[in-house]
Amino acid sequence: MSNKIKLGVVGYGNLGQGAVKAIKATDDLELVAVFTRRDPETLGIDEPGVQAVHIDEASDYQKAIDVMLLCGGSATDLPEQTPHFASMFNTVDSYDTHAKIPEFYQSVNEVAANHHTTAIISVGWDPGLFSINRVMADAILSNGENYSFWGKGLSQGHSDAVRRVNGVKNGVQYTIPSEEAIEQVRSGVNPELSTSEKHRRVCYIVPQEDADKSAIEHEIKTMPNYFADYDTEVNFISEEELERDHAKAPHGGFVIRSGKTGKDNNQLYEFSLTLDSNPEFTSSVLVAYARAAHRMSQEKQFGAKTVYDVAPGYISPRSAEELRKDYL
Amino acid sequence: MSNKIKLGVVGYGNLGQGAVKAIKATDDLELVAVFTRRDPETLGIDEPGVQAVHIDEASDYQKAIDVMLLCGGSATDLPEQTPHFASMFNTVDSYDTHAKIPEFYQSVNEVAANHHTTAIISVGWDPGLFSINRVMADAILSNGENYSFWGKGLSQGHSDAVRRVNGVKNGVQYTIPSEEAIEQVRSGVNPELSTSEKHRRVCYIVPQEDADKSAIEHEIKTMPNYFADYDTEVNFISEEELERDHAKAPHGGFVIRSGKTGKDNNQLYEFSLTLDSNPEFTSSVLVAYARAAHRMSQEKQFGAKTVYDVAPGYISPRSAEELRKDYL
Repeated sequence: MSNKIKLGVVGYGNLGQGAVKAIKATDDLELVAVFTRRDPETLGIDEPGVQAVHIDEASDYQKAIDVMLLCGGSATDLPEQTPHFASMFNTVDSYDTHAKIPEFYQSVNEVAANHHTTAIISVGWDPGLFSINRVMADAILSNGENYSFWGKGLSQGHSDAVRRVNGVKNGVQYTIPSEEAIEQVRSGVNPELSTSEKHRRVCYIVPQEDADKSAIEHEIKTMPNYFADYDTEVNFISEEELERDHAKAPHGGFVIRSGKTGKDNNQLYEFSLTLDSNPEFTSSVLVAYARAAHRMSQEKQFGAKTVYDVAPGYISPRSAEELRKDYL
Repeated sequence: MSNKIKLGVVGYGNLGQGAVKAIKATDDLELVAVFTRRDPETLGIDEPGVQAVHIDEASDYQKAIDVMLLCGGSATDLPEQTPHFASMFNTVDSYDTHAKIPEFYQSVNEVAANHHTTAIISVGWDPGLFSINRVMADAILSNGENYSFWGKGLSQGHSDAVRRVNGVKNGVQYTIPSEEAIEQVRSGVNPELSTSEKHRRVCYIVPQEDADKSAIEHEIKTMPNYFADYDTEVNFISEEELERDHAKAPHGGFVIRSGKTGKDNNQLYEFSLTLDSNPEFTSSVLVAYARAAHRMSQEKQFGAKTVYDVAPGYISPRSAEELRKDYL
């Protein structure tokens, strides 16, 4: 028997696939199985030695798995799956419907507390690492303002919207933080900025043959909610260019707190991510927090937890002694 | 009686003065007294209502103070003061002699565990916030490299060194991260970089009348250990310019981890600080961690702790409910 922490992955979409790769990149974690609602035979896992199992058989794995990584979506999967799995396993999920987190927390906490499991919810980078930095910066610089910027990031919702425009064959949309707004924040003036003032939108559109490009551009730029309030740029490209240059799912962003201490000293706190692959990074965060779920469960810290409840050392593969000696 | 957490400050140098200001900027913390080895009458605290007390009387304050902030230096003060005060109080200190941290931890842990106090050691930004980010980035991106850059920062040791040069009347030295090195790291190539390749040094020198400037410049640039290995820039200015433009103690820096996930996706994790006042920021971090020392002590988490043992929510003035609702 190895001493590795034994993990299961539920769901094999972008996030589940990223989790399988992230687990393989570690020395202290071991993947036992991927659980799926599909026919396991058809899952086509391209990692050697990873078995696929139907989700209904997960309960047979309670002894074999230390932590279950829940890689479903927030809209319909996780509100059902997290309470279900938290009754049998320690879990980590990436629930990201910000407005419903308190309700989700309640429902998971009740199950996890009753069944003596540790369920870390809403893990990833936002919610997740960005949340940690918003809170730490706020705690340290009492007198200041937090700013979150997102991007450069491929937005699925906005890409869908431009593809519905008349004359558009294909297209993608990137949300990009406004350099001007970032500079303003960094300067320490603590401006009031709406989401549309903090970001601009850049579209790459493949037009249908003979389409009226100026009509497309106009329709996109005036689309209410999605684009009308934003500084929007529309570029026309070929299908080949779209495939070549826009196939990845990059994302990232900044959390910045600008604060004052003493008489009039500006103090700037920044956290940023620049990600080639949003799902692979998110699942790497989930995988790291599996260590924390395992350790907190061993310490009988049961119930629902968020990143705010997890000490940084708990997500590391290294011992407390090594961290103090080599990383402090 | 207020519900505020009651703090004492030991030492009234730059850090202690910063701590007094940082406590005043909060709503949930209250300063009981500043403790000093000097004659308390002569301390000249310029904050209304703050009393100065001789350090020998600190033991009388065990009931009145929840957490003692130790604002002495790492060379001689803290190795004595932290074990001494940890026998009576929960403490937070900024011990920053990296090589001796394991030894310091041992000596403090023994006292704090025996006396049922919580002693959070080595708090600040490096060690401290930078340490947290080095460990979290390493835990999340298994396949990657960490880089720490310091500056733009006023270096006391290097400023002293230039002031000893023949013909120099006054001067300061800034350590500045090399933009070229940062760009290389951000590009994802994971270069091997020595400290001198990551930083350059910029000096502002007030020459004595009739001094040989080129001799000064040569002596500085060839000074072993301090400057010889670095890209060094020497600027000559007037005493007035020195006073006007170089009176603050700015500092800061970056922690960057560049890692890969999946097939070949670059993922860049960055944390940075740009500080007008290094001591005021450091003491603001100490003050925030006082909340954690108090809470962990109430939960009977006794002994020496580092930032790796402290969950982010513990340093916040806000409740867990508020954090989940508004910050996650």
